[in-house]
Amino acid sequence: MGKLPDAAKRELLAALGADHVRDDPEALVAYSYDATPLVQAMPDAVVFPGSTEEVAAVLRIASRYGIPVIPRGSGTNLSAGTVPVAGGIVLVLTRLNRILEIDEENLTATVQPGVITQHLHQTVEARGLFYPPDPGSMRIATIGGNIAECAGGLRGLKYGTTKDYVLGLEAVLMSGEVIRTGGKLVKDVAGYDLTRLLVGSEGTLAVITEATLRLLPKPEHRKVMSALFDDLYGAARAVSSIIAHRIIPCTLEFMDRATVQVVEDYARVGLPTDIAAFLLIEQDGPEAVVERDLQRIAAICEACGAREVRVAATEEEGEALRTARRAALSALARLRPTTILEDATVPRAQIAPMVERITQIAKKYDLLICTFGHAGDGNLHPTCPTDARDPDEIARVEQAFEEIFAAAIELGGTITGEHGVGAVKAPYLEWKVGAAGLEVLKGIKRAFDPQGLLNPGKIFPPDGRKRKVIHRVPHVHA
Amino acid sequence: MGKLPDAAKRELLAALGADHVRDDPEALVAYSYDATPLVQAMPDAVVFPGSTEEVAAVLRIASRYGIPVIPRGSGTNLSAGTVPVAGGIVLVLTRLNRILEIDEENLTATVQPGVITQHLHQTVEARGLFYPPDPGSMRIATIGGNIAECAGGLRGLKYGTTKDYVLGLEAVLMSGEVIRTGGKLVKDVAGYDLTRLLVGSEGTLAVITEATLRLLPKPEHRKVMSALFDDLYGAARAVSSIIAHRIIPCTLEFMDRATVQVVEDYARVGLPTDIAAFLLIEQDGPEAVVERDLQRIAAICEACGAREVRVAATEEEGEALRTARRAALSALARLRPTTILEDATVPRAQIAPMVERITQIAKKYDLLICTFGHAGDGNLHPTCPTDARDPDEIARVEQAFEEIFAAAIELGGTITGEHGVGAVKAPYLEWKVGAAGLEVLKGIKRAFDPQGLLNPGKIFPPDGRKRKVIHRVPHVHA
Repeated sequence: MGKLPDAAKRELLAALGADHVRDDPEALVAYSYDATPLVQAMPDAVVFPGSTEEVAAVLRIASRYGIPVIPRGSGTNLSAGTVPVAGGIVLVLTRLNRILEIDEENLTATVQPGVITQHLHQTVEARGLFYPPDPGSMRIATIGGNIAECAGGLRGLKYGTTKDYVLGLEAVLMSGEVIRTGGKLVKDVAGYDLTRLLVGSEGTLAVITEATLRLLPKPEHRKVMSALFDDLYGAARAVSSIIAHRIIPCTLEFMDRATVQVVEDYARVGLPTDIAAFLLIEQDGPEAVVERDLQRIAAICEACGAREVRVAATEEEGEALRTARRAALSALARLRPTTILEDATVPRAQIAPMVERITQIAKKYDLLICTFGHAGDGNLHPTCPTDARDPDEIARVEQAFEEIFAAAIELGGTITGEHGVGAVKAPYLEWKVGAAGLEVLKGIKRAFDPQGLLNPGKIFPPDGRKRKVIHRVPHVHA
Repeated sequence: MGKLPDAAKRELLAALGADHVRDDPEALVAYSYDATPLVQAMPDAVVFPGSTEEVAAVLRIASRYGIPVIPRGSGTNLSAGTVPVAGGIVLVLTRLNRILEIDEENLTATVQPGVITQHLHQTVEARGLFYPPDPGSMRIATIGGNIAECAGGLRGLKYGTTKDYVLGLEAVLMSGEVIRTGGKLVKDVAGYDLTRLLVGSEGTLAVITEATLRLLPKPEHRKVMSALFDDLYGAARAVSSIIAHRIIPCTLEFMDRATVQVVEDYARVGLPTDIAAFLLIEQDGPEAVVERDLQRIAAICEACGAREVRVAATEEEGEALRTARRAALSALARLRPTTILEDATVPRAQIAPMVERITQIAKKYDLLICTFGHAGDGNLHPTCPTDARDPDEIARVEQAFEEIFAAAIELGGTITGEHGVGAVKAPYLEWKVGAAGLEVLKGIKRAFDPQGLLNPGKIFPPDGRKRKVIHRVPHVHA
């Protein structure tokens, strides 16, 4: 894409006003990247609509002039999903930031896409209600972004992910037409499930302008424990055994040896650095059930050879244990200039083999790859501290992650559990969905967006680049 | 459609063998209808594939000759979803009836589509596991049909519906290509969510040949209670108040006055026939939690003016209470030759206004319409005992249900909560999804099945018949 046509710019200004249409270099640079390392591309304009009607006006103008549109919230995406790789208009939805309704009879929240996830958490929890999805970015990420990516989080094992909480959507098609899907309904089978199809569609099918979310009663009580293992397979056996005992904790988090060492070095939480695996386990629910479950889990961990099991006696002690897990990414991020966080995911029972494969691959390519993540749902975050300025090392990083994705698929898993395909994993999508599946996905894309203007360059591999590593070097064409 | 081309028949025989391809009149009549009253149409052939490969072979042959294919399980459909309204080949999946695996580590069951739902329930419950969807037809319906229709049931309020339990699918496209979606994964965001798109797609997009289902631990305990109300709004207030007290029972069932009278007349369970509403409430979970919740619910029902509240003291007493609700459809079905069971659905808070509207509409058209259903999730079953041989009355029934669907939409609801659109509700789909939404649905259909051969005449209104009542008189062209 070159610069925005003058006529298109005039129309955008007329529709949104001068304050909400920008193409100055500062704005273009500010919206040329998201939280994904190594990927950057300049948009031609950045617009900030204040209503569904203004979103529709932008899409109509863009359709008429054939300009790509990249919907975006806070830009916490980790797969370059909101980077304007083909130029065009970045459509920033952060002005649409109102919680429109909390319906305590139907247990729903109706929100605009720019609401910050944590703000929604706090608002509903103050009323004794609960919105479970808790992606790591929840303090800054928006609900719209969570929906577009089908964000997961720590509570996925027990509570599922964003897709399990979206009951209805208002969305604008690239034509400017507004559709409404679902509603305040637990049961609705009128036509194909467009609600679920739009969840996780990464801004490539329609722009979400309103969402009706399902709420639960807030759990009465919660409590956390940790277990330290000398043996990776002991920890994996404990995870499997907890589930086999028919206990579903609300979180079941894992850190491998490399991660524990980095975390302890950074946060000094008192973890022995010679352990092979750290498990953080939390249960919520009625107090008696929580206490009983944690006692059972402690016994299971001990039977699986845990060196130490500690149930938090107080909420403060619980927070200290949670801090160790939460510190993982920050601790890793300070090691080297660039941190690449991935989310290869396997069936729960394949966690130990997968962590071993990651360790072998890291050794093969002479890299530090620390693995932590959501053991309960098999969603691992192999993370590589590296340096974008070292092209040789980056090439090895790309090779290593390609092998990690292949290993995940081989073990019955997927290339992305919660971060999305975006631009970064598009070359690998066919590994997961197959050639026939990919053609079906392309057909769906055409049904919504025949011109291919909504968030181009995402999900689908660029032609002729299948199964090849995408070139992730910064690209700024300002 | 006329008779099957000879060449197509020869190819089907070569692919499946003579035992599994039938076009004798007995077979054609047997597969000319499902559980939907008033709709019948003859197929040209009935085939019984024994493997995914045989399903693919049938679809390839049908594609080549342009013959419609109607996938079908036990035929318990209530929206004429499995009636071959455009002729063609009925593809019966009941030979694919194996439970392939119960994976206790990943908490999944992998099954073929012809498995009977209750058989799956019994098999997993014997291992302390739990598959929540429990449609009324579960004793004879198949999992494949449940998935195709996104079947609901009594436990939807607490546990959701079929869509919440399908993790992965194997499906055959009309081209004969086999796709695999999802897997044993709680988190998977690689591409659009084809799994969820196929759930509830009513056999119009692909033929499901295998499903991986999510299981839960079996609840430790369950207990049931009933509450009788002199006032419909008192019962509705109790439903809302239970939820507002942050209690989610596993079932919260409702019968209106007309239903109670018919049930008592039939089953003699000791219900007073002058009450306005009957609630059946069940909770499951740890025993202490169940006891506490039922005590709280009893107090709430009394505060909302219940005439009588009874908590089952024994499992036998509980079964007697459940019998009253379960008897509803059988009791209604014996009144008149034809029973039309519908499933207009509203947000939970709109149940009382909806039941009042149904009562008014029944009066206006001089019909008996009894309403019972799943109050907790707003999924009502207004049911009309009538007589297919009385064209005047049937015309009034059609008018009445058209007004009922319109009322449901007006109250923020939907035309179908769990029975599907099928042929019967296709004329009303646009009311729910809008013109732009309908175009998107058609685009999705084309992406999967460009020739329009998979289960034609379902979901989409026939051209020029929008918003008109479909002609539901038996149509046999043998």
